[in-house]
Amino acid sequence: MKINVMDKLLSANDAWAEENRLLLRKHGITMLNIIGSPGAGKTTLLEQTIALLGKTIKMAVIEGDIATTKDAARIEKMGVAAYQINTGNACHLDAHLVNTALKELINDVNPELIFVENIGNLVCPAEFDIGEDGKIAVLSVTEGDDKVEKYPLLFSEAEILVITKLKLIEHTNFNLAIALAAFKQLNKKGEVITVDSCSGEGFASWIDFVQDCVLVHKIAECFK
Amino acid sequence: MKINVMDKLLSANDAWAEENRLLLRKHGITMLNIIGSPGAGKTTLLEQTIALLGKTIKMAVIEGDIATTKDAARIEKMGVAAYQINTGNACHLDAHLVNTALKELINDVNPELIFVENIGNLVCPAEFDIGEDGKIAVLSVTEGDDKVEKYPLLFSEAEILVITKLKLIEHTNFNLAIALAAFKQLNKKGEVITVDSCSGEGFASWIDFVQDCVLVHKIAECFK
Repeated sequence: MKINVMDKLLSANDAWAEENRLLLRKHGITMLNIIGSPGAGKTTLLEQTIALLGKTIKMAVIEGDIATTKDAARIEKMGVAAYQINTGNACHLDAHLVNTALKELINDVNPELIFVENIGNLVCPAEFDIGEDGKIAVLSVTEGDDKVEKYPLLFSEAEILVITKLKLIEHTNFNLAIALAAFKQLNKKGEVITVDSCSGEGFASWIDFVQDCVLVHKIAECFK
Repeated sequence: MKINVMDKLLSANDAWAEENRLLLRKHGITMLNIIGSPGAGKTTLLEQTIALLGKTIKMAVIEGDIATTKDAARIEKMGVAAYQINTGNACHLDAHLVNTALKELINDVNPELIFVENIGNLVCPAEFDIGEDGKIAVLSVTEGDDKVEKYPLLFSEAEILVITKLKLIEHTNFNLAIALAAFKQLNKKGEVITVDSCSGEGFASWIDFVQDCVLVHKIAECFK
């Protein structure tokens, strides 16, 4: 019984995800789904990305949160349109919620690139396809090098792993080699970038990745 | 339809939670449910608690994880019995899973105190009563001071908020006053303790809290 209900939910979600993919193709938009723990540095990554790339690429952001509009306010302060979704008690964004946001952003902004900042959570968001071109896994060094193995679904599905808060590594027992080995074990083709949002370290690689993705997307689909 | 399914799941869960409460009362056991993000420092808090209190109070730990038995291994290395639950893709422990673990631990160890380390997640674990005496919210300073407001259910229900990784605060923009004000807004009676597991700072207060809880429990119920 429990499995049937879950199957039905996922199948309804997949239909909406397909709808989102068609909408994105039609309007030539790349959509990246950013997933990580609460406080992994997802919003800060977006703020820095907007600062470095906001004048080159027309962006918009869909912000998923249980409560508050704090993250959307941070994005809008950077001059980029943000659509805030508050899920109340749901631990992930689903494709239907994203569909409503997409339609509004296409109508109002017509962006080339949409970042979806999913609910802060390493479990549920990875289980729901929202029609994105790729999943971006964000992991901060302060969370520990064991998290890749402990939350395998996200890390096996991500197109790229962004390891954040690099300047704090000396104050932790995070072993980069252990995290990278675990990621490679789960994910043969995923890239890894290490960044620090305060010093700007590693951002050149991240910006290259984002730009390549949008460029490639203009010719074919980005990742698939 | 979705709401009815959720209601049924929660009502079945509540029956098992009540079963757990009866079992705990019968055996004079205090059970504390530890909830926080991945990497908030829950297992490290338990390791330090065992080091400081393991000879005074007979403890056991129920470890909830999506995958791996890493956390149970860390607890057993400290000389305390641990029962590992791997949920696969479920983002929380439910009362039925905990019931199986409880029965085995009572049979094997007969502890006075059981810590449940829930799945690393600020959303789902707070939604499921497992029959615990109290919820312990764990938040690390590296996650940011906005998390209390962004994940209100856990912080409104917790008996105590343990703020961890205090020595890292100088490397972050975490404002303790903001986090405390948000917590007090949501939770009139909850205590707050700040700790650092490397230096041992704040652990005297945490150990007092745990000891008081077990002592009080011998006379009446701990929190209710």
